[in-house]
Amino acid sequence: MADDRVLLAHGSGGKVSHRLIDEVFMKVFTDPVLNRQDDAAVVPGGEQLAFTTDSYVVKPIFFPGGDIGKLAVCGTVNDLSMSGAVPKYISAAFVIEEGFAFAELYRVVESMAAAADEAGVAIVTGDTKVVERGSADQIFINTAGVGIMRPGADIAAANLRPGDAVIISGSIGDHGVAVMSTREGLSFRTAIESDCAPLNGLIAAVIDSGADVHALRDPTRGGLASTLNEFAAQSGVVVAIDETQVLVADQVAGACEMLGLDPYQVANEGKVVAVVAAADADKAVAAMRTSPYGREARIIGIVAEAPDGKPRVTLKTTVGTTRILDMLVGEQLPRIC
Amino acid sequence: MADDRVLLAHGSGGKVSHRLIDEVFMKVFTDPVLNRQDDAAVVPGGEQLAFTTDSYVVKPIFFPGGDIGKLAVCGTVNDLSMSGAVPKYISAAFVIEEGFAFAELYRVVESMAAAADEAGVAIVTGDTKVVERGSADQIFINTAGVGIMRPGADIAAANLRPGDAVIISGSIGDHGVAVMSTREGLSFRTAIESDCAPLNGLIAAVIDSGADVHALRDPTRGGLASTLNEFAAQSGVVVAIDETQVLVADQVAGACEMLGLDPYQVANEGKVVAVVAAADADKAVAAMRTSPYGREARIIGIVAEAPDGKPRVTLKTTVGTTRILDMLVGEQLPRIC
Repeated sequence: MADDRVLLAHGSGGKVSHRLIDEVFMKVFTDPVLNRQDDAAVVPGGEQLAFTTDSYVVKPIFFPGGDIGKLAVCGTVNDLSMSGAVPKYISAAFVIEEGFAFAELYRVVESMAAAADEAGVAIVTGDTKVVERGSADQIFINTAGVGIMRPGADIAAANLRPGDAVIISGSIGDHGVAVMSTREGLSFRTAIESDCAPLNGLIAAVIDSGADVHALRDPTRGGLASTLNEFAAQSGVVVAIDETQVLVADQVAGACEMLGLDPYQVANEGKVVAVVAAADADKAVAAMRTSPYGREARIIGIVAEAPDGKPRVTLKTTVGTTRILDMLVGEQLPRIC
Repeated sequence: MADDRVLLAHGSGGKVSHRLIDEVFMKVFTDPVLNRQDDAAVVPGGEQLAFTTDSYVVKPIFFPGGDIGKLAVCGTVNDLSMSGAVPKYISAAFVIEEGFAFAELYRVVESMAAAADEAGVAIVTGDTKVVERGSADQIFINTAGVGIMRPGADIAAANLRPGDAVIISGSIGDHGVAVMSTREGLSFRTAIESDCAPLNGLIAAVIDSGADVHALRDPTRGGLASTLNEFAAQSGVVVAIDETQVLVADQVAGACEMLGLDPYQVANEGKVVAVVAAADADKAVAAMRTSPYGREARIIGIVAEAPDGKPRVTLKTTVGTTRILDMLVGEQLPRIC
């Protein structure tokens, strides 16, 4: 492209828009369905579908271990996977600030294509809007996703049962600390990379292991604390976590201490919390460990009845006491995803 | 909600986020699937699907005849309809600027619910991000949509054939001029309202009439000129339009003249261009006219071969001359949708 910055005209729907589409998106996203450039993509379906959406406003847009493009694809692939679906189709919608560099747009779009390729999903439809300088911050990306449900899957946050095992696929807090480490005005630099990754392969391994999976969720915004509290509330149970089993990397723990953050409330982008029937816990952990993204999978707690009718999450601490693990109150890390 | 403005904490994924979801979105969007609040919505599917997405950044967010919420639902319903699908499921993802008034958010969300209700689609999944003051302009909405393809439908911009009739469902330029009329700094006020409307009922009437429909597209950004040029290019044909048949409301024509705009390049949000087999043209027009949004439907042109291999759009003007109708070059109306 002759110009090296995105102009308002690139969002006009006219000739310059078509050039942007042809010279950036169609060059990098090569799916034949997208290539038809109709108003909607027409794709093979299935009896039951999963459908999800997320907008991504992460700041900065490039961070150790990933970028807004990788995040946008992985986040939506993961949300589909968490419902028991096989992720299939992804949409990509861009809101771009006038003046955004084409070099950065290419980098983001190529990162999306690579993540989609790894996850085995097709980017089949898209949209671009350009807003005036100062009306958005660089680039926001929305992805929606469609998956085909595995027959018989019944995986939901409301399905936890007393006795179930709570499993997590690895350490917590990496994504949030990786993004924070690059934020303007923060004085620390860590070796921590975002865990941003597509988890569909890992989830498929767990389901294919035959383990009786009741609930799956990726502990993104709000961290592990939010996911566990959502599980407890939606199922009306107590989730009892053993802190000695929860992995927090040393640099993540150090960064959190310095910043006054609770690693349980820091976002992850490549982890899954699985709640499975107790008898299948070891099988599920073993299945997770077959994935490069689940090498450190482990059981971290159990589900119990809420005898007083009050769902909650309890944490048995490393010093042997028990505390309530509450959901994040207020804002901790704006624009973490 | 106690506070009357959206805060960064409303995007945190923690307690305040949950309050926003419960007290705004779940109150207004009452679909039982959405109500499960899982990572993805699980819904019945079909053999072939249509999938589309659009982000909406229209400015101002409220305008005569509509608002960003109505636009976001209708736009996606229409894109699905244009592929020959029955629109079924809509996602709603919000990027909100810190400080945005809850009263306006309610108004937008209620408008989305009303539009979805009219179109008979379910809003089944969503997302909210909040960015710092100055990092977005009030509110941006992305909707994606999933539709179920009608069996045997083969409707695409590449399907035009010489001899086909070109039909439009009504007047052009209304949306663009309605939005412009409310823009800051413009000195005119017109009685023109946006034509923003869900067209799935109108499209269903045309398809159910048995007319052999080759292509459908809603002439949004870039206007009728872009849609016709896309048709011509993708099918390798000449599209010959008779200007005397194209309706432009007097106030729209007047506003365009004052602003130096070409109504053929101004966005519409409730019109469809249909290309049908010549023998079925009257049948298709009659079917459109059964819809409240197609009362002024009419044939505006024909498709011809491009003997020199150069696809193009020609316009027979009201004074009897013929000119090339080109696609918009550059930016005409930023943030029109």
